[in-house]
Amino acid sequence: MSNADTHDSRHQRIEHGGGLDAARRRFPAAPEPWIDLSTGVSPIPYPLPPIAPQAWSRLPDADALIALEAAAACAYGAPSRLAVVAGAGTQAFIQSLPRVCPGRRVAILGFTYAEHQAAWSAAGAHTETVASFEELAEADVAIVVNPNNPDGRLASPEQLIRLAERLAGRGGVLIVDEAFMDIAPDASMAPRAGGAVVVLRSFGKIFGLPGVRLGFAVCEPLMAARLRAELGPWSVSGPALAVGTPALSDAAWLERSRAALQKSARRLEAMLMAAGFEILGGAALFTLAARSDAEVWFERLAKRGILTRRFAERPSWLRFGLPAEEEHWARLREALGLPDVR
Amino acid sequence: MSNADTHDSRHQRIEHGGGLDAARRRFPAAPEPWIDLSTGVSPIPYPLPPIAPQAWSRLPDADALIALEAAAACAYGAPSRLAVVAGAGTQAFIQSLPRVCPGRRVAILGFTYAEHQAAWSAAGAHTETVASFEELAEADVAIVVNPNNPDGRLASPEQLIRLAERLAGRGGVLIVDEAFMDIAPDASMAPRAGGAVVVLRSFGKIFGLPGVRLGFAVCEPLMAARLRAELGPWSVSGPALAVGTPALSDAAWLERSRAALQKSARRLEAMLMAAGFEILGGAALFTLAARSDAEVWFERLAKRGILTRRFAERPSWLRFGLPAEEEHWARLREALGLPDVR
Repeated sequence: MSNADTHDSRHQRIEHGGGLDAARRRFPAAPEPWIDLSTGVSPIPYPLPPIAPQAWSRLPDADALIALEAAAACAYGAPSRLAVVAGAGTQAFIQSLPRVCPGRRVAILGFTYAEHQAAWSAAGAHTETVASFEELAEADVAIVVNPNNPDGRLASPEQLIRLAERLAGRGGVLIVDEAFMDIAPDASMAPRAGGAVVVLRSFGKIFGLPGVRLGFAVCEPLMAARLRAELGPWSVSGPALAVGTPALSDAAWLERSRAALQKSARRLEAMLMAAGFEILGGAALFTLAARSDAEVWFERLAKRGILTRRFAERPSWLRFGLPAEEEHWARLREALGLPDVR
Repeated sequence: MSNADTHDSRHQRIEHGGGLDAARRRFPAAPEPWIDLSTGVSPIPYPLPPIAPQAWSRLPDADALIALEAAAACAYGAPSRLAVVAGAGTQAFIQSLPRVCPGRRVAILGFTYAEHQAAWSAAGAHTETVASFEELAEADVAIVVNPNNPDGRLASPEQLIRLAERLAGRGGVLIVDEAFMDIAPDASMAPRAGGAVVVLRSFGKIFGLPGVRLGFAVCEPLMAARLRAELGPWSVSGPALAVGTPALSDAAWLERSRAALQKSARRLEAMLMAAGFEILGGAALFTLAARSDAEVWFERLAKRGILTRRFAERPSWLRFGLPAEEEHWARLREALGLPDVR
């Protein structure tokens, strides 16, 4: 089947979380429903507002897009001198940025999310995964995922501002991928973007609605115009406009959700430590844990219908997302071999 | 406002239908609700199926995408040797094709939809709008919108196959944009794509759901793999997957809808002729009409809350979409100065 072929060639490239159907095929005897802890998506979805029929039956309206971007600018603290561009997920910007940034020597603070490297390589850039800010400062384009996925490492705004100044002096660009920043946004560079700095934000992860495909870039107006030209018209769907604007404007919901997610993250860490894992880090929506026999644990959990995220390059690591319901917590506890605490 | 600036710079580039909010600002005294006849979207939306919460709360699943593309392959009559790639609207492919096709001399059969020219120019290609198949055959990349927007001109599969053979002999590519083919699909090249031929299809227009953002490319598997790499993962939203697969599999609904749309198109043509317009062509979802005083009519209709599509380069033309309800037909008839036939 040629269709499956062209899909496989992409999927072999980069492994992602979220592949429940593939997990079902590989572990056919696992109990249903599967518990998907392989992504870093909030288990608390924003309650869907009523979606007007016109959101589906009309082309996405330019004014609704402007309203969405204004709501995002407010939520992210972007000053009015900056532009906020909406796209179909942070991924849309990861695909587009290599086409709008002139740099050819790209340094990525690693170990991190693999799609940045893939997109720049595909565009013909020379990419290097580096370990220090010193090395980042020597590139044309420096990329920092902040907080980092999968280990939660957090760079301070001061560090990033100093880096941006060094890059700007040589015409460079700093891309800060803040897909997981919403849980503790004090370190966000969105209020300090512009100049050499482009900040990416994700809607779906913190609002628990990644199927919607919505993300943002905060940057200089000129860079924004270039990104818009790359994305083309109507890149954000009508339903995404209808859901995104009220959700981004609902600061009270976000505050409550954050508190619940932080509490769940502490509970998950305690459970993993009790099961003999070392906690390497995390960003509330995910926790990175290590054990020398992590590969065995991946299989053991999968056979019990619990999908986690492993890393081919780091066989002792497993990344855990947050369980959604008490029943999921109970199944995870049991699968980890911990006693029932009830 | 920098955000408005970067939006405007895009919107000044190419005018599209569907700008109801802009029309409201320009004609503030027009009666509500506005009737939008400025697009070529079916006024009969496919009834939304129930959408599972997971369509929103999970990343779009790879298996669901494969199922959607299989449904599209069946609906479009694409043989199994070809690949069908889903994207967020035909526009996503218009943006991507200049990056995956090697050609630099691009000929577009005109006068036609402006986004093709814009995308290739932005990618640095030399583009030319041509009037004949002879001129198309001399390019690296030939683009035919079929049936054509806005005049409905239809090229036969035989013409296109001959063109494709000439292009293929020199390593060229033929892009057939069949965004409006669904109304009378006998002339579709989807069953004959592959080799030098890439066929684009639109989901939203015929199913009356353009807000969903869904379109397809039918092509060789190698070209498909390149397009998938350009689009990146998760480019089609969860709701689009949930709506697209059942709709594309519902041949009976499509047949009924086609018949109703054909009937409406004949009714619209008769009404426009009665009002003194010359019918230049169309493709059921839109009718292109001409009058020397078309600009006056655009304003007159807009003041009555009816938005049509005009063309800066062709001031005597107006394109009309299909009214959705009897009340809209009545308002159009009245605005055109025709007597009430009831």
